[in-house]
Amino acid sequence: MADQERTLLNKLRVEPDGKVRLKDWNPRDKSLFKDEEETKVATAALAKDIDILQDRLYAEGTRSLLVILQGMDTSGKDGTIRGVFNATGPLGVSVHAFGPPTRDELEHDYLWRVHEAVPRRGTIGIFNRSHYEDVLIGRVRKLAPDKVIEQRYEQINAFEKMLAENGTTILKFMLHISKDEQKERLQERLDDPTKHWKFNPSDLEDRQRWDEYQEAYEIMLNRCSTKWAPWHVIPADRKWVRNAAIASIVKATLEEMDPQYPKVSWKPGDFKIE
Amino acid sequence: MADQERTLLNKLRVEPDGKVRLKDWNPRDKSLFKDEEETKVATAALAKDIDILQDRLYAEGTRSLLVILQGMDTSGKDGTIRGVFNATGPLGVSVHAFGPPTRDELEHDYLWRVHEAVPRRGTIGIFNRSHYEDVLIGRVRKLAPDKVIEQRYEQINAFEKMLAENGTTILKFMLHISKDEQKERLQERLDDPTKHWKFNPSDLEDRQRWDEYQEAYEIMLNRCSTKWAPWHVIPADRKWVRNAAIASIVKATLEEMDPQYPKVSWKPGDFKIE
Repeated sequence: MADQERTLLNKLRVEPDGKVRLKDWNPRDKSLFKDEEETKVATAALAKDIDILQDRLYAEGTRSLLVILQGMDTSGKDGTIRGVFNATGPLGVSVHAFGPPTRDELEHDYLWRVHEAVPRRGTIGIFNRSHYEDVLIGRVRKLAPDKVIEQRYEQINAFEKMLAENGTTILKFMLHISKDEQKERLQERLDDPTKHWKFNPSDLEDRQRWDEYQEAYEIMLNRCSTKWAPWHVIPADRKWVRNAAIASIVKATLEEMDPQYPKVSWKPGDFKIE
Repeated sequence: MADQERTLLNKLRVEPDGKVRLKDWNPRDKSLFKDEEETKVATAALAKDIDILQDRLYAEGTRSLLVILQGMDTSGKDGTIRGVFNATGPLGVSVHAFGPPTRDELEHDYLWRVHEAVPRRGTIGIFNRSHYEDVLIGRVRKLAPDKVIEQRYEQINAFEKMLAENGTTILKFMLHISKDEQKERLQERLDDPTKHWKFNPSDLEDRQRWDEYQEAYEIMLNRCSTKWAPWHVIPADRKWVRNAAIASIVKATLEEMDPQYPKVSWKPGDFKIE
């Protein structure tokens, strides 16, 4: 199993050579896993493994794991958090969702609010959207001058490198869905009254700019997949494939981090409890 | 089941009449539940109910639930979070652990860091320890003049009332363990190398002041159990009793809050997804 997880990790990882073409990645791909039911069972087991490794990470208390989720609307960012991290529970895992910046946030540089939200040592932090919005929606909707957007890719790489060098392992996942799949999921939100609150009419505007967004994602993948903070492109049309792929990569990464229970400066015999 | 949960809620709730004597509450009590295995299954089901109710709270997005956990060392604050909220997952639940105040925190009033950490609308926030430390360890170790400590009870009540009036439902749980049970759990931390990191030699100093702490807890219960933010005393020597009691009360409370999917300002027919 461990080997399989590492293989997946390598297969879905974007090499830092700047040669990704998003069209070569099939969002409906399920060749990575054989059987749906079997894979779901295996994913649940991986989620438990993640929980156990997270306990050790927490005990060790010196490093952290940052998981960044990006993807078009309905690509399954919330679903990934549920599917992969529910067994880990809220203790030692924090989720930070980045919405449109507040007025206070706009009065600082775009990484200010991001830095404030990075995970504490010993914990897993999940970013539901992130600073990458500033080169995605920022680029497509021209929220800043071209030159400013251009500078951000390197700024982000430098920022992430600093985090990595200071004990934060970074995993970035692009949840890659097809335009057809998004259509189905948006329609579901219209059809099911308990999902109405998830539907935002402005999502349709982003959908109209689908190709522009794909281009912005491609540029992001090519310029910001680094050795210290690699991007992975996750086939996300099938939820079970998405969860299995991400759970495998997270588990393999935690295993490589290999957190250890800290040594204590006392011996058990030093104490007698009255 | 719903009736049973409400009964529990009332039975373990501290009336705001200031007449609690902690000695009357048995930490080993298991009369609330019949069978251990049956109760564990029921607790797992409650945890799932909490998850579903939490989803609706998140969708509604206007109110929040604050769960405050206090108790002596080893009383099971972390275990409660795992046992009751693991099914809820990290999405929409945040845990805030209050350790000794940092220098920056000490340069403000004691409620400053607490206010900053209250849950966002739509979420459940769990405090692992809280501002009550300032009338517990604060009182026992005389970290502030008597008069300052005295003033805090009313300040806390006023602060919590403000939160409640602004949409935060507050549940406070004192995890009540016996001195014998603590001895066993501390010994376990000494005996099991994977638990060494949880053992803090200074815990023994607090143990020596057991009676003073019990008194400080009693004063806290008598002065800060209010209609808008009630304390509950949870028999915590048995982990399954503790989890079952808290899960019941949280679920009954969320049910009473009865969060609703928000009304949207559009009709599904207004949109055609191309």
